Amino acid sequence: MKNQTINLLEKAQNITEYWSPKVVGEVDDCYVKIAKVKGEFTWHDHEEDEFFMVLEGELTIAMKAESVSLKQGEIYVVPKGVLHKPVAEHECTIMLFEKKTTLHTGQVKSDLTKDISQQL
Amino acid sequence: MKNQTINLLEKAQNITEYWSPKVVGEVDDCYVKIAKVKGEFTWHDHEEDEFFMVLEGELTIAMKAESVSLKQGEIYVVPKGVLHKPVAEHECTIMLFEKKTTLHTGQVKSDLTKDISQQL
Repeated sequence: MKNQTINLLEKAQNITEYWSPKVVGEVDDCYVKIAKVKGEFTWHDHEEDEFFMVLEGELTIAMKAESVSLKQGEIYVVPKGVLHKPVAEHECTIMLFEKKTTLHTGQVKSDLTKDISQQL
Repeated sequence: MKNQTINLLEKAQNITEYWSPKVVGEVDDCYVKIAKVKGEFTWHDHEEDEFFMVLEGELTIAMKAESVSLKQGEIYVVPKGVLHKPVAEHECTIMLFEKKTTLHTGQVKSDLTKDISQQL
């Protein structure tokens, strides 16, 4: 896993399901993940910070106090404990950095909740 | 620092020195950094893994056993303890993800060694 050069957008072509992050790398106790997203995710929070980078498309991260919108090449870190709901009007490809222990939908369990260590 | 949306390539326009990574975000005990590089860096290793992503240009990471070349949108994780020397023939902009404790040139000190927590 660690010794591969990965083209993120090429790799993302293998993703067949929205809102299902796939592990593409490990950095110590963190995973690097990519995901394709479209539509609205569920409100949730995590016990750890969560880094978002948009690789293609546009992502809005709704939060109670404010919302942010990210275009290609833009990043945002959702602080631990902050409720957020990612939303993408059109298909969007993102990269995530987070602790290996970070749960997909935090303590919220729903049909959207995925295993946190699925590899591509 | 954590609550900003950052366009990485726009932010990188503020960088005036090669091989001097600047912190643009924090994810728990890790920093997200960007750097402009050109020419050859020094051989070094770290006690932690180091994530590289090329945002613009092309980067070669020379290692004793193999070398890898990364183009825009490509990532590579140099495992802890692996000697490496980043090289860019032309100007290249990269993003790094690493522990806050990771030293710039590992245990090797040289004129190239920078403070590890410089912010942009």
